[in-house]
Amino acid sequence: MYETIRYAVEDPIATITLNRPDRLNALTGLMLAELQQAMKTAEEDERVVGILLTGAGRGFCAGADMERLQATSQGKTRSSVEVKPTEKPGDFDMLGDDYRLGHAYLMAIRKPIVAAINGPCAGLGFVIAMLCDIRFASDRALFTTAFAQRGLVAEHGISWLLPRLVGPANAMDILLTGRKFDGAEAERLGVVNRMIEHDRLLEHTRTYLATMATTAAPKSLQSMKHQVYKHLDVSLGDALRESLALMEQSLRHADFKEGVNSYLEKRPPRFTRIVIGPPTTEAPSE
Amino acid sequence: MYETIRYAVEDPIATITLNRPDRLNALTGLMLAELQQAMKTAEEDERVVGILLTGAGRGFCAGADMERLQATSQGKTRSSVEVKPTEKPGDFDMLGDDYRLGHAYLMAIRKPIVAAINGPCAGLGFVIAMLCDIRFASDRALFTTAFAQRGLVAEHGISWLLPRLVGPANAMDILLTGRKFDGAEAERLGVVNRMIEHDRLLEHTRTYLATMATTAAPKSLQSMKHQVYKHLDVSLGDALRESLALMEQSLRHADFKEGVNSYLEKRPPRFTRIVIGPPTTEAPSE
Amino acid sequence: MYETIRYAVEDPIATITLNRPDRLNALTGLMLAELQQAMKTAEEDERVVGILLTGAGRGFCAGADMERLQATSQGKTRSSVEVKPTEKPGDFDMLGDDYRLGHAYLMAIRKPIVAAINGPCAGLGFVIAMLCDIRFASDRALFTTAFAQRGLVAEHGISWLLPRLVGPANAMDILLTGRKFDGAEAERLGVVNRMIEHDRLLEHTRTYLATMATTAAPKSLQSMKHQVYKHLDVSLGDALRESLALMEQSLRHADFKEGVNSYLEKRPPRFTRIVIGPPTTEAPSE
Repeated sequence: MYETIRYAVEDPIATITLNRPDRLNALTGLMLAELQQAMKTAEEDERVVGILLTGAGRGFCAGADMERLQATSQGKTRSSVEVKPTEKPGDFDMLGDDYRLGHAYLMAIRKPIVAAINGPCAGLGFVIAMLCDIRFASDRALFTTAFAQRGLVAEHGISWLLPRLVGPANAMDILLTGRKFDGAEAERLGVVNRMIEHDRLLEHTRTYLATMATTAAPKSLQSMKHQVYKHLDVSLGDALRESLALMEQSLRHADFKEGVNSYLEKRPPRFTRIVIGPPTTEAPSE
Repeated sequence: MYETIRYAVEDPIATITLNRPDRLNALTGLMLAELQQAMKTAEEDERVVGILLTGAGRGFCAGADMERLQATSQGKTRSSVEVKPTEKPGDFDMLGDDYRLGHAYLMAIRKPIVAAINGPCAGLGFVIAMLCDIRFASDRALFTTAFAQRGLVAEHGISWLLPRLVGPANAMDILLTGRKFDGAEAERLGVVNRMIEHDRLLEHTRTYLATMATTAAPKSLQSMKHQVYKHLDVSLGDALRESLALMEQSLRHADFKEGVNSYLEKRPPRFTRIVIGPPTTEAPSE
Repeated sequence: MYETIRYAVEDPIATITLNRPDRLNALTGLMLAELQQAMKTAEEDERVVGILLTGAGRGFCAGADMERLQATSQGKTRSSVEVKPTEKPGDFDMLGDDYRLGHAYLMAIRKPIVAAINGPCAGLGFVIAMLCDIRFASDRALFTTAFAQRGLVAEHGISWLLPRLVGPANAMDILLTGRKFDGAEAERLGVVNRMIEHDRLLEHTRTYLATMATTAAPKSLQSMKHQVYKHLDVSLGDALRESLALMEQSLRHADFKEGVNSYLEKRPPRFTRIVIGPPTTEAPSE
């Protein structure tokens, strides 16, 4: 089905693997389209609670493919990576149209995306890793933004996102120098949540997502991901008002009763899976 | 005077202790009302320069009381915790109406609030701890947001505040998993300012506040707390303009002359205590 | 040429040294004017890719000169440090007028500024250090905001910038207490990018800037510095739209072709230096 990525679902996790290992999974236009298609497929699959993104072979993602960059630099293609607004992904897109610009759609995918960064992670690959919600890096990970070394700028929203992840001074260091840094420094800088020993990286990430899926309500995950990103861009008052409205909704949902009862009965909860997109089969929440 | 909290003033510190130790200080409607009343009382007390918030017994705060949550989940009460706009707390409320929504009033209290987190800190208790200005946690502290485990959302502004405290990726980890983490990890994540050995926690926090009170002008503390929170929501230009206006005021205040003179004379400063609310007894500043 | 600072250019670095070592480089009105003049001169000098700011003698900067503060506190001068909007520094001032307020012009200087903090760094000196883009501190550095100890407020935008650098809780700690902390703690708090052994501080900072200058396109540095600061104040959508426009420009610039070719040919790049201000001698980019 896919040429440049691998896609596999094992309830409750969808695993997307960038799969051009001979090119360190460098990105082509096809690959970016397949990545987006796979993300949407995972979002709409009721079995999937969380999404794991990693790379095949010894790299995570080397960034935009160099042949492609070279062709662009010689005027043979219009842009290193075509960027166009994505289609509106559904009816819960409260994040708004801004998240349909380029790769920011990853922030609008209504399920958690966890990156398992297994090796080199450069340029546009670095941006895509940062657009995931949570990141684990192995001790073989190697990061570089690389844009300044190619005469480019801070692309695809990384100048907005990185200062919010690591502060503006670390963002300046990472962007202006384009220097390479490893998983341990990535953890110290806040570029990743944690460094994990290479041989345990995938298993750690799978267990992390599986634990999340067995303890958290999928609808809560959807709301919280939305809230964290949306509320980076709004005032405290607007965030409070939206959060109160979402809380009122949640208090009327079956998941809340199940969350309280399972806690009191000291048993694992059985939460509703979410189904996105028409036709909706989600149980009415009120 | 209070049923569910303890309130004590020893110049220059007001100590508020959540006091339902048999329930790990789980929050009831009465307790939230008493907490707010005590915060206002401390704010208006001239003897108080800073406020210390902690928990009685082995916990800080277990969150909303489970019996209450259960009643809510069975439709017996309207909401797990009633939230209504607080009364306008005074005439210096430059933070605006947004800070009168729910528990955000803590950010508008015009004196520093330091949390001494002595044990479990969960759910709404976690939110209240985060709404304090500075946090110390003991090695017996244990944190969890717990919302996703109950089918709830990121409540009461935590989706706005937590990403600003620890970055959006750590906020996602903390909110989506609801996992438990201890004081050492809370320090590493930025959830607390420092971890302090359990037996020294209260003494450390008292000394911290007492030192602040003997070296800093109370009016400066009031301005700075206001500036830090207000300027999270405004542009650099608006922050600069307000800061210039506040600086001009401070340069005409007796505290500035005392600050310079006490420094040059190598003696402790004697700053003006602030009195909030009518009738004002504060010395005219111009 | 300068009375209170030293200014030296050795391609590709301009070094500005605060030079009142007998006063720990305490700031006077003349010194602030000379600092601004030197920053502008470095910005307009084609040989300069990056700017290094440090202090002569055993201090970085003690803040506003105490004699001056004393005169102000006695009503002899209007303000501790005169603040007026700077002249519009050029035709690329996309950051807008806000950055011409007071010392924020440092964020609008279109070349990277790296602070080498070699000793005490206090008050307004602390603010100026924070307004640099990247900071290294030696193990002899000592930081204090000192404003609260003088009865002052969070001045000159530090209440906007510091919470974005270190989070609001660390900013509260640093501002409210005015406590002294050293280079190691400054690194832990995120106040500086790294602590460097005192005897290696200047050499480390020079090598850092020289490496940046030989590997990164100066025009990329200019864009990225602009993007990081500008995008702290705008929505994700606005940041994405501006970044796309800047990327399109960069793809048509000679530096992009040189960046790709030098990478493929495994040789150092030869990027265009930037020249700022009329008459422009920069090669047309389209």
